[in-house]
Formats: sequence, C-alpha cells, structure tokens
Amino acid sequence: MVGAVTHASDTADSASPQTPAVGPDMTPQQYGVGARFTLSVYDSDYVRIILGALEQADRTGLTLETNDISTFVGGTEQRVLEFLRDVIGAAAASGAHISAAILLSRGCPGELACALPAGVPALGAAPVSLAPAGVRARAHWSLYPLLDGGSEGDHMSPIYAAIEDAKTAGIYSGSDHFATRLDGDLAAVLQTAANGWIGVGGVVQHVTTHLTVSLNSPTQIAD
Amino acid sequence: MVGAVTHASDTADSASPQTPAVGPDMTPQQYGVGARFTLSVYDSDYVRIILGALEQADRTGLTLETNDISTFVGGTEQRVLEFLRDVIGAAAASGAHISAAILLSRGCPGELACALPAGVPALGAAPVSLAPAGVRARAHWSLYPLLDGGSEGDHMSPIYAAIEDAKTAGIYSGSDHFATRLDGDLAAVLQTAANGWIGVGGVVQHVTTHLTVSLNSPTQIAD
Repeated sequence: MVGAVTHASDTADSASPQTPAVGPDMTPQQYGVGARFTLSVYDSDYVRIILGALEQADRTGLTLETNDISTFVGGTEQRVLEFLRDVIGAAAASGAHISAAILLSRGCPGELACALPAGVPALGAAPVSLAPAGVRARAHWSLYPLLDGGSEGDHMSPIYAAIEDAKTAGIYSGSDHFATRLDGDLAAVLQTAANGWIGVGGVVQHVTTHLTVSLNSPTQIAD
Repeated sequence: MVGAVTHASDTADSASPQTPAVGPDMTPQQYGVGARFTLSVYDSDYVRIILGALEQADRTGLTLETNDISTFVGGTEQRVLEFLRDVIGAAAASGAHISAAILLSRGCPGELACALPAGVPALGAAPVSLAPAGVRARAHWSLYPLLDGGSEGDHMSPIYAAIEDAKTAGIYSGSDHFATRLDGDLAAVLQTAANGWIGVGGVVQHVTTHLTVSLNSPTQIAD
C-alpha cells in the first residue's frame, strides 16, 4: 500500500515507539483492520439515496471517516462487513443501479511502512457470518497476499480454500482476467470475500482484497 | 489474485506447455498486462453517457471484454492508460458526477496460478506519458507488490520513488488509511499510478494497483 510517511521517527526498518506488543490481544485498530468503500448510484437522486442508506446503517463500534473519494470504516471484521452489507443493501432497495468499490485491509496499520514489528506472526480472525441482505449482487473479487510484513508460509492453500468455499456456497460464478466472479445474495458475496481475506490473513501479515459489486444492473444476467 | 483453475495440467508448480520463453520479447498479453474498470455515472441518463464515452475512445490495439460488473482492457501500458483517460474524460465532459474503479495488473497472466515460470525476472516497461485530459480528478491509490511470482529484491524503493514523483508532479495530496490521495488533471493522476505500478513491476513480477477516481463531485474541495 502507498501512503505518506507522517512521522519522522517512522522508518521502514524500526518499529515506532508506539507500536504495541503484537499478539492475539491486538485490537483490530492496532492491526489495521478496516475497509474503504465508494458507493455509486446511477441515478440523479443519488444524494438522497446515499444519505438515506448511511442513515439506516448501524455504525455502533465503528470509526467512519469520509471524503469525496471514498469512506474509511474501522472496526472488527464482523462489524465492518455488517455495515457494508447494510449501506449497500439500503441503497439497492431504492431500485437504482448501484456499484460499490470495496477495499478490505489487514496487517498494515501504518502508511508507507506497515509499522508492525518485523517477524510478527500473521493474525487471522474468526470468520464473519452475515445474515442475508435480500438483494442479489454480482462482483469481481481480487485477493492480494502482499510482500510487506512477511509470510508464515503457504499462502496459496487459503486462496484455494476460499475458492472452494465460494463454490460450496453456490456463489462462485467463474473467472475473468484478474478477478473471480461471485453471484448471489449481497451478504453471501461479502462474506465469501471477507473470509477469504481473513483466511489468507492467518498466513500472511499484510493482506488486502478488492470487490467491485454491481446490483440492479439493467444488463445483469437473468436467473 | 483469485481465479479458476481452468486446465488440469496447470498447477502452481509447473509451467504450462504453452508458456512462452520469458524475456524482453514477451508481449503485454503474454505477461498479463491489462486493466479492469467500472465507470459509474451518478445520473439517471447514465446509459447514454457511458455508451457515448465508449464511442469516443480510440480502442486501436486493445482487447476489450465487458460484462455487467466491469470491463477488461488488454494491451500495452500506454494504450490501456490512454483508453482509460479517454473514456473517463469523455464521461466527465457530460458534467455528471463520475466515479471510476480501476485495477491495473501485470505479471500474472494465468488465473489462480500465475502461469509464468518460477524465477523469471520481473519485467518492467517504459513509463507511460499521457497528454492532459482537461478535467480535474481526485483519487485514492493503492499499490500492491504481491507474494506470487517472486521478487528481485527491494520493492520499497520504487514505491518511495512513486510517491516522490507524485509530489514533484504536484498531485500528491496526502494519505488516508490504506491509500494515497492524488489530485490533479485526470491524465496526471492515471500516469502517476501507472508509472508507480510499472516501476515496482521492474522488481516484483506480480504487481497490481487500484485507483478509485472521483470527478465532478459536488463535495469536491474547491481550488
């Protein structure tokens, strides 16, 4: 990931004096668990639809920071994914064609340098479990085990497992260049991508995943 | 990246018999150079605006594959980025608020397994040079050197160099969680992200970069 070096004392080689001891007691915030998302509404009434969707979503336990480009959501994996399901689902309930660009990240709480001590184990988490949203979504999904921060070993096994989980859930829809297609209830799509990200996160410290989600598209394949 | 294993003979450990000898003669297609993008138009007249933008953009030398989620663009780095500038710029000329979700990828032409021989050198490319689009864009940019495919060494130096290039170009706008902010002419934003991706690509075989671009936002910071 790319970002500013904001403190003179932070370098790629040394841990910031504020870096906590890493272990299972690390909070999601300390471990850099969170999302960025952009909600796009293909409708001239988009301001009302977006504000209404944000209003309806429960933000308990979450940190939200927004600007004109995208919104940051910080918190536990379960809460972050519930929030995304709720905001996107509420926007889709308007009937408008929706696209959501989502980034999930873990293991790199700093900016340019990840600010976790070198050699720290990768920390996974419990898988998320999301109740259905009641709206169909199709998505392109990419999963990125990164060079920064290090790896405990075999990162391909959790990737293969994530694909198998998507097939078992009935939402694996094939692949296109650079991405896997997912198709099903919005909650199932989000859950599959999140749990693939968490699974790889148990082996690789710094993992991101990207989802481009389409709902209510006029060109969507009919069931 | 995540995708289907489509051929029984493709495994993570062996090169497909169709894998060409890798070297500077590899075509962009063989090396897996390309983009996926989703163009979102916050306007009820979005179909006309999107079709019109696609109509205006020169697709010479490019492979395009589209579905309801996102569109694949294959070709040289220069042609792919010119095309993205032209389509997004044309859509923005409508005056509508636009968001574009862009993925650039290199070094993993296969699906689940990258299908380049292990130990193959990372192949960079000449930087792209894009004439201005004449429209302002703000973007969140993330740059991903990946574990798959291998690395020739120091991947952080080209990342730091990419940030410095953004600052020199006057389009570095700070950082937010997980992403760098870029702000300037659409062409300069695309060029900076692409050249950071190409630069890292000279050291790391499999590199992706994501851009979420916002144009004509009603909440955009005024100059």
